[in-house]
Amino acid sequence: MATAAVTSPVIDTCRAARRAARELAQIDTARKDTALAGIARALIERTDEILAANALDMRSGREAGLGDTLLDRLALDASRIAAIAAAVQDIVVLPDPVGEVIEGRRLPSGLDIRRMRVPLGVIAVVYEARPNVTIDATALCLKSGNAIVLRGSSTASHSNAALAQIAAQAAIAAGLPEGCIGLVAGGGHEELARLATQQDTVDLIIPRGGEGLKAALQEVATVPVIYAASGNCHVYVDETADLKQAHAIVLNAKTQRPGVCNAAETLLVHSEVVADLMPDLLRALGREGVLVRADERIWALASCFTPEELPMGEPLGVVMEPATEADWATEYLAPTFAVGVVDSVEEAIEHISRYGSGHSEAILTRDTDAARAFQLGVDAACVYVNASTRFTDGGEFGMGAEIGNSTQKLHARGPIGLRELCTYKYLVTGDGHVRD
Amino acid sequence: MATAAVTSPVIDTCRAARRAARELAQIDTARKDTALAGIARALIERTDEILAANALDMRSGREAGLGDTLLDRLALDASRIAAIAAAVQDIVVLPDPVGEVIEGRRLPSGLDIRRMRVPLGVIAVVYEARPNVTIDATALCLKSGNAIVLRGSSTASHSNAALAQIAAQAAIAAGLPEGCIGLVAGGGHEELARLATQQDTVDLIIPRGGEGLKAALQEVATVPVIYAASGNCHVYVDETADLKQAHAIVLNAKTQRPGVCNAAETLLVHSEVVADLMPDLLRALGREGVLVRADERIWALASCFTPEELPMGEPLGVVMEPATEADWATEYLAPTFAVGVVDSVEEAIEHISRYGSGHSEAILTRDTDAARAFQLGVDAACVYVNASTRFTDGGEFGMGAEIGNSTQKLHARGPIGLRELCTYKYLVTGDGHVRD
Repeated sequence: MATAAVTSPVIDTCRAARRAARELAQIDTARKDTALAGIARALIERTDEILAANALDMRSGREAGLGDTLLDRLALDASRIAAIAAAVQDIVVLPDPVGEVIEGRRLPSGLDIRRMRVPLGVIAVVYEARPNVTIDATALCLKSGNAIVLRGSSTASHSNAALAQIAAQAAIAAGLPEGCIGLVAGGGHEELARLATQQDTVDLIIPRGGEGLKAALQEVATVPVIYAASGNCHVYVDETADLKQAHAIVLNAKTQRPGVCNAAETLLVHSEVVADLMPDLLRALGREGVLVRADERIWALASCFTPEELPMGEPLGVVMEPATEADWATEYLAPTFAVGVVDSVEEAIEHISRYGSGHSEAILTRDTDAARAFQLGVDAACVYVNASTRFTDGGEFGMGAEIGNSTQKLHARGPIGLRELCTYKYLVTGDGHVRD
Repeated sequence: MATAAVTSPVIDTCRAARRAARELAQIDTARKDTALAGIARALIERTDEILAANALDMRSGREAGLGDTLLDRLALDASRIAAIAAAVQDIVVLPDPVGEVIEGRRLPSGLDIRRMRVPLGVIAVVYEARPNVTIDATALCLKSGNAIVLRGSSTASHSNAALAQIAAQAAIAAGLPEGCIGLVAGGGHEELARLATQQDTVDLIIPRGGEGLKAALQEVATVPVIYAASGNCHVYVDETADLKQAHAIVLNAKTQRPGVCNAAETLLVHSEVVADLMPDLLRALGREGVLVRADERIWALASCFTPEELPMGEPLGVVMEPATEADWATEYLAPTFAVGVVDSVEEAIEHISRYGSGHSEAILTRDTDAARAFQLGVDAACVYVNASTRFTDGGEFGMGAEIGNSTQKLHARGPIGLRELCTYKYLVTGDGHVRD
């Protein structure tokens, strides 16, 4: 078996990936799919090795006093490994983006031009504790014809090394070039800076981590970076909204999975429907354990009801605190919800323009003018009418899988799937054409 | 008349552009086109003002000892102003990229999704002495719904101020928002750094200038930059090439306009056709005043012919020097041509991979396998078969106009036209959809 992905100095790993990328770009779909299927199989067959490596990371993590949440992200077991392998199989069946002719025509000069999707080349993925990213990212990069340089957290170093080595051996056994999967040690800021300045060999860095990682990269990177930034997502309930739908959508957007980037963080309610919508909604949020940070008008509404005046005569049963300026700008990623009142769709758009992070924003309305004003006026990757923000996802959008979610405007906005891991080139064919 | 584009502190200009951008993004095509037509008209009507401002720059330039080439780039006259106005009119008739639905479908969840092209927002264009860029860039940005922040050279400060002010007044008179055209003073590196770090208000910087400007930006920019980098373009004549066509294409690629980025800088010739192709071609290059930097095999070929042995019995009449390693990596932008011999299409691809800048590359061949290997194997924005590299151009490619030519792989590769000045957003519509 060939030597496979091993921790090695950053520059060597990037150079090897660059060499591999040239070959990978021309490998046909069938061979890439065979390699991915081989990776999925090897992960299952070598589950014990992966678990042994993971046990080392878990022990170090406990000794270092990692919290339960981080330990849970780090932990692997047979069913999680099976899920990782199944996710690779899901990518096998996706269409290959490479070679797709995006557009083409005959030019007035008589030249035939085609704009063809081709791999970016070498993609570096920088991520934190979750070891599954090692395989998820690798599968997406290989399917799209790219070599990958992985830089995981030192907390997961044994798990990542085992996963990357198993994947690289399976890939090479299936005929993919050596160096197509590289792993660099977690290391510190110096090593991150070295990776982020390999612009001659690395085409793109995708960080998967928090604002600290983003800031660290922004300071040093000369390689292009697509930041999968935070999601400070809003749901705005317009005065014409179907309030039963609104109740269900707000609850879904906030509580179905509060820790992810497409969950709602702020609710804006039109003043005309506050009294009808909020008592029941606050009660339901309270039942889900949501802490509400309320603006003055929500606060006043809630406090002016005696239990007897409330619909159904029940107390609200929700914990409320006054919202501060900081609440409007916060991505809680937790069961906390900023809630405020606005007097128009324009005011809602203005609020979102000031505080939103350009991820996913929703209006709930039956008014076509309000829907149109909101969809055109809100500057975000995904703008919803009468649906939950939770749908922003490569899988839901029909891309099959995603490596992250971009709130940037350049190159890729929204879910980053296989196509977004590609660039294009113009192929131009003539029969002796010269320019006048 | 409202106050229009005036030189002002960088941050204020960028903020005003950001405010304008929100409004501009929703202005319909007709009003944008009216504004562009108004700009074209105002340039003609106010030609005297522009010429008076330009005369000040020309005088300062002469006093500062600018060379003839730079003075020529700086100089305006009535016919050049008419040409600038005509170029604006050409943009009026182009289709508006904003609002185009790039793709759309019904998702399995029943949601309807559309990916719609929308303006980037605020684009900063950093350029050197040519004052026409002030108007060319402005027209492309406004047509694509973007606000523009211009940062020209201090050498052209009076000309740029006059042009930007006339354009801004005409745009505002036609109903575009104040701040849609901003101009910041040339200033030094400190001011460039300030502009390049306004990531909260500026969405993209497009530098139009040499490698010095690129290096300066790469060091400081936190705003995304699309580098319109250099074009070290190659023409490879394969063993099966039609040599008459090859002669014409090579001459066209090298000599039709040697100072532009899509002109050829290196000729690679298959060893099987060197003896048949080169004597006549060298003679023709000599007639065009081209200096040839020859590798050893070209050198040997040329020196082994006596005049009597040459076809038609004429001496070659071309000035040749031995090529050094540096020649293969140089973008001459001048009538100098590196010429070398290779033994296969693979060797040509390898050479281009090592030295090319990813701009435009051509193979001349009658062999379909060689054509395919070259088009797929060469990693460049534009890859030609049997045509001159000189066709790489937004106008030739049917985009109508271009603001530059990208050798990057992210966002835009090749000519940067109206579409490439846009991003997209996902518009998703449901009727109460929540995620399971």
